[in-house]
Amino acid sequence: MRHPLLEELVAKHRPDTKGGKVADYIPALSRQNPSVLGIATVTPDQELMYGGDAPEVSFTMQSISKVISLVLALMDHGEETVFSQVGMEPTGDPFNSLYKLEMMSPPKPLNPMINAGAMVVSSLVKGSGVEDRVGRLLDLVRAMADNPDIEVDEEVFRSEYETAHRNRSIAYFLKEYDQIGDVEETLQVYVRQCAIRVTCEDLARIGLSLAQYGRSVTGEQIIPQSIARLVKTFMVTCGMYNASGEFAIRVGIPAKSGVSGGILASVPGKMGIGIYSPALDDKGNSRAGVRLLQSLSRAWQLSIF
Amino acid sequence: MRHPLLEELVAKHRPDTKGGKVADYIPALSRQNPSVLGIATVTPDQELMYGGDAPEVSFTMQSISKVISLVLALMDHGEETVFSQVGMEPTGDPFNSLYKLEMMSPPKPLNPMINAGAMVVSSLVKGSGVEDRVGRLLDLVRAMADNPDIEVDEEVFRSEYETAHRNRSIAYFLKEYDQIGDVEETLQVYVRQCAIRVTCEDLARIGLSLAQYGRSVTGEQIIPQSIARLVKTFMVTCGMYNASGEFAIRVGIPAKSGVSGGILASVPGKMGIGIYSPALDDKGNSRAGVRLLQSLSRAWQLSIF
Amino acid sequence: MRHPLLEELVAKHRPDTKGGKVADYIPALSRQNPSVLGIATVTPDQELMYGGDAPEVSFTMQSISKVISLVLALMDHGEETVFSQVGMEPTGDPFNSLYKLEMMSPPKPLNPMINAGAMVVSSLVKGSGVEDRVGRLLDLVRAMADNPDIEVDEEVFRSEYETAHRNRSIAYFLKEYDQIGDVEETLQVYVRQCAIRVTCEDLARIGLSLAQYGRSVTGEQIIPQSIARLVKTFMVTCGMYNASGEFAIRVGIPAKSGVSGGILASVPGKMGIGIYSPALDDKGNSRAGVRLLQSLSRAWQLSIF
Amino acid sequence: MRHPLLEELVAKHRPDTKGGKVADYIPALSRQNPSVLGIATVTPDQELMYGGDAPEVSFTMQSISKVISLVLALMDHGEETVFSQVGMEPTGDPFNSLYKLEMMSPPKPLNPMINAGAMVVSSLVKGSGVEDRVGRLLDLVRAMADNPDIEVDEEVFRSEYETAHRNRSIAYFLKEYDQIGDVEETLQVYVRQCAIRVTCEDLARIGLSLAQYGRSVTGEQIIPQSIARLVKTFMVTCGMYNASGEFAIRVGIPAKSGVSGGILASVPGKMGIGIYSPALDDKGNSRAGVRLLQSLSRAWQLSIF
Repeated sequence: MRHPLLEELVAKHRPDTKGGKVADYIPALSRQNPSVLGIATVTPDQELMYGGDAPEVSFTMQSISKVISLVLALMDHGEETVFSQVGMEPTGDPFNSLYKLEMMSPPKPLNPMINAGAMVVSSLVKGSGVEDRVGRLLDLVRAMADNPDIEVDEEVFRSEYETAHRNRSIAYFLKEYDQIGDVEETLQVYVRQCAIRVTCEDLARIGLSLAQYGRSVTGEQIIPQSIARLVKTFMVTCGMYNASGEFAIRVGIPAKSGVSGGILASVPGKMGIGIYSPALDDKGNSRAGVRLLQSLSRAWQLSIF
Repeated sequence: MRHPLLEELVAKHRPDTKGGKVADYIPALSRQNPSVLGIATVTPDQELMYGGDAPEVSFTMQSISKVISLVLALMDHGEETVFSQVGMEPTGDPFNSLYKLEMMSPPKPLNPMINAGAMVVSSLVKGSGVEDRVGRLLDLVRAMADNPDIEVDEEVFRSEYETAHRNRSIAYFLKEYDQIGDVEETLQVYVRQCAIRVTCEDLARIGLSLAQYGRSVTGEQIIPQSIARLVKTFMVTCGMYNASGEFAIRVGIPAKSGVSGGILASVPGKMGIGIYSPALDDKGNSRAGVRLLQSLSRAWQLSIF
Repeated sequence: MRHPLLEELVAKHRPDTKGGKVADYIPALSRQNPSVLGIATVTPDQELMYGGDAPEVSFTMQSISKVISLVLALMDHGEETVFSQVGMEPTGDPFNSLYKLEMMSPPKPLNPMINAGAMVVSSLVKGSGVEDRVGRLLDLVRAMADNPDIEVDEEVFRSEYETAHRNRSIAYFLKEYDQIGDVEETLQVYVRQCAIRVTCEDLARIGLSLAQYGRSVTGEQIIPQSIARLVKTFMVTCGMYNASGEFAIRVGIPAKSGVSGGILASVPGKMGIGIYSPALDDKGNSRAGVRLLQSLSRAWQLSIF
Repeated sequence: MRHPLLEELVAKHRPDTKGGKVADYIPALSRQNPSVLGIATVTPDQELMYGGDAPEVSFTMQSISKVISLVLALMDHGEETVFSQVGMEPTGDPFNSLYKLEMMSPPKPLNPMINAGAMVVSSLVKGSGVEDRVGRLLDLVRAMADNPDIEVDEEVFRSEYETAHRNRSIAYFLKEYDQIGDVEETLQVYVRQCAIRVTCEDLARIGLSLAQYGRSVTGEQIIPQSIARLVKTFMVTCGMYNASGEFAIRVGIPAKSGVSGGILASVPGKMGIGIYSPALDDKGNSRAGVRLLQSLSRAWQLSIF
């Protein structure tokens, strides 16, 4: 259902797409339409609201998938094992940074939301081979979104896989210290999870699963409560790249963004939110999307602080 | 009033003081009794609860004072001015780190909770000279704690001021780029605010002022609501040094610690908490204090996530 | 011809092999005999002198080959092109460090003697395909050493190529910025040049070619004079990893070491020296080899300072 | 005596002063005339040659004085003590950099030519108080230059001392780890040695003392031979800030520059050279001075490589 306030806020913030820039380092992403802006929200009573281009558009999860793989790795291994291999601390450095790793011995990625940490996490997802492991990730996404039709976009995957020089550099660095399994298998899983194609509605339902402490929209407890809480914490401290601190102050909602322009947001106990607008600001977050979420947070008093 | 659960949790966690170490780099701090553990909580209905050594002990605020100076600088200048001079992003680096400053041109401290950022903030507090500026900080602390007897401990101040080589190094570095006013005046304000002597009860009431969005226990709006929210956000993302991420996950309460062993915690809408236990863990946080707060957060479901 | 002083110095320094450790990160290198120590020297009148195990042993060049590839890249492209892609400055960082690259935009390796710089240089060596480019490097080594039998040790190459995670990480990092050609081709050239098998005598003659400003032992000008001078300068400022400064002070001779335990040294106008002893010190230089060269420098007054 | 080639080279390179910039961070230095260029050379037979403005101008030593204090600290304490407190390795970082210190525990400056290392060295110079220690440094400069009239320029000293925020930051950082004595006394010595006023002729004679392995122009052995050799090595590996590598390649002469625009050069066994031209390049070296020295090195074949 279209919602008047969401429509109004989309109208207000669509001009903000103009100052942003669609990601161009992955060829398949560079073709996205920069002026798109859409939002979907869903509450525990399953009322779904739309604004802007939400119903018509789909996009790949990119870094938003780091939340999913973290959930699955925690379900597969427990907190102790996962956090013996990746840290819990936010960092002021860019998501693709390597230098802090070089300064630790052995190198342990600071958190699961930077690329190095996310690759360690993807390497931990159980399964026999790439297909099985990606299948398990897909199953979790589908369950959280209550949408069995979600798939990997193989074209985006291939485009990204071939040009993933920086991620390959990080992966081989980690391999030197045996912190990931087979490099190319880990990269295949990681890049495929990034290429899972979703809609704003999917993200809103995924956000609601976390907001409801692991219960999906259908009421099923698909994720343990403690894990649902834990990943929301990471979303606050390091979900928006190295603008996470400012986002927490201005918006105050657990959220995770991706370079495709998607934002997954989860208001504890209250609401799941999905946003898409591919024109990015200089930190790599959706420019209009962040502003739209800030307006919504104020209007509906959604800050957790 | 002594509270049975608080007493029980203090008894449970007092042994945790054993694995910690009292800060020894400031002579006056090194004389604290390592086995002390106390807690005070206060709710909007002004019910004050105690546990352990809370009523008997006092201690200096140290880094907890960074919250107070940030509030005052924001009240003096507004967000825009303050955040043009200090960032909003958490950092994985130690609180006394300099190297990131060197890599920026001009150097801008990443956030107001690391020493470099806190000195910039202290330099922004208005007033004619050290005495006036420290007086204004003291007035704010007294109002928030509803306690007119709070004073600076001059002995701790002197002890710390004379050995503040690292902070002096940071201050001169900032001075090179004109990011603080007079170096020694800034240091005098900063080290004096660190030496403000409080009790667990004081911290609990300060925490309640923030939890009540700026209203003190007497019901007076002493801090603008937006500023009260903003500083709680910083407490989550960077209040516990470079263990803030883990603390957010394990405890989930906005909090700020100091090397004296104090912790100020603020549960939005619900409660202010003050803790003191001077034996520190290797990140510089009160070892038993953090564990006590974690148990309390679980028992009373205080996590914001 | 065995030389009494060389024999005496080998006897004196052979015990120094005990404090060192054979490189173990490349399986094929870890099988070297740690107590071997040999030296060969050759003067412009072609008088060849031996000491210790020099005549019997051969070893792979490893980082010593960086001198050869630099010579060839300079002959192929000239100074201007080469130094637009790699710097001239020594660095206090380890040879396999990445972090300085991350701090420059675009990243330019500080000098051709660290791995990142050496890979850029290998990528510049002309030729149609790996075989042709390695063949040209081999031809130059053979001409400088006046020994047509020098070959690549394919077993060492394979062992190193399969475990070159760190170098592969560096190579992909450089590829991200298009600073090298095809990654695997560059690595194949680079790792093969490292696996060129030589003797102390070969190194002594190579050193003499540089000492004679590009004229080989046969009197032929095989390298332009300016290039021979230039590479000797790099050997002084960054030839011995991050112990180059100390080596310049203690020994004062242009030299380049490899993790196999070889040292190539070149005394301008006077002498070429080849040393082999695989037990390494903690900076990665031949432990007994460095000490032997220091004693020889004092005995024969070889320091250029 | 004016020398035709020196005059010709000065004429050729005077236009190079135009692209440079006089140091402006020290008020007293910013008043230097940017178009000045002078050179003096002196050979073991004491033949003194001039070119350009050499006879008329004087200037402060600035970083050139690091060579003098290193000589004196080595004479006072021996190599072992000095190099237990400061390293021997060149660095690719700027002279006033702090970050490498922060990454070592305890921090040990990489070499005596960067500011941190030079302050440690100045702190090692023996004497009872600032005056005595500066007096001993002055005595050494006078002996090496064979000029009893050399003095500290107190106006430059004061100007520099008051604005030495960055050096004060470094000094307090070192103090934190007790690597220097009293901070202000060390700074007074260090900044005063920087303010010693000399001429090109003085520098030429100082350079000759080093070139003659410690014998002054009068034939007296004022510095032990091993120390004279050692400081020339540092001049090659780190004498020209982070352009030392390029300078070694292009010029090939041990040299030390200062931000005043002076260059001290010493050709082992052959010649001392003093140059002055205050317009600096972007690395902080005399722009025309470096080019003049490069031309002279080629003309007279002075490279040690």
